[in-house]
Amino acid sequence: MIGRLNHVAIAVPDLDKAASRYRDLMGAKVSSVMELKEHGVSVVFVELENTKIELLHPLGGNSPVAGFLAKNPKGGTHHLCFEVSDLRSAVAKMIQSGARVLGDGKTKIGAHGLPVVFLHPKDFDGVLIELEEVAKTDLDEGSQVDP
Amino acid sequence: MIGRLNHVAIAVPDLDKAASRYRDLMGAKVSSVMELKEHGVSVVFVELENTKIELLHPLGGNSPVAGFLAKNPKGGTHHLCFEVSDLRSAVAKMIQSGARVLGDGKTKIGAHGLPVVFLHPKDFDGVLIELEEVAKTDLDEGSQVDP
Repeated sequence: MIGRLNHVAIAVPDLDKAASRYRDLMGAKVSSVMELKEHGVSVVFVELENTKIELLHPLGGNSPVAGFLAKNPKGGTHHLCFEVSDLRSAVAKMIQSGARVLGDGKTKIGAHGLPVVFLHPKDFDGVLIELEEVAKTDLDEGSQVDP
Repeated sequence: MIGRLNHVAIAVPDLDKAASRYRDLMGAKVSSVMELKEHGVSVVFVELENTKIELLHPLGGNSPVAGFLAKNPKGGTHHLCFEVSDLRSAVAKMIQSGARVLGDGKTKIGAHGLPVVFLHPKDFDGVLIELEEVAKTDLDEGSQVDP
């Protein structure tokens, strides 16, 4: 069911410092800061050869990352995002097996403009998991890093 | 400098349950349990299209994962591993910039039989980072998932 690891999201206390660390110290290709107001986060994308790191920082008063940083002021891995080709059937399988889908269980449009759900970390070894629906052809192409 | 994300390591309280979740619920290709006594861990590899998840559980009395699970009994993301082609120069750059290399700063042979170092999570937004030296050709091939 799951295809590629689309990204690893890391919540960071200082987005500019984190970005410069990945750019200057790690030598990675790093985007400029993007403000995703509707998702309550500022994001920097670190493009690796086979996947992405998303550096997340709270934006606005109701950010999904603010609570995480309050508990983990130095930052930390926030979630892993796996690609699926059919999110509706993936969600049905999760619910049938007893795994909890966060919120009302309905898919939402995520930061990449694609349908997503989040799965409860208590059901996945303490790891918050995002499932993102990608077009079937993307899954078939496999190794391509999304733009 | 960094190339592919080689793997995401997740420390888990029950390796069999975690493996079956990724195999049966997530539909991923999952290895059998491997005991890496010299590294103090039992490991299950989850093979994704573009990278790997390594499910880690303590093995023996002096496991590097035991302390993490004591603090995070439900499990959690333990480290990220990035590939580099020249570990010696990567380590020199880290030390020069003030980033801390764990242990004595010397490279060790990691769980894949390749030279590795670990970088202090306090210098990387709370994320423990492993750098693993891979042959240059592996980096050039980019998208291939290691056996």
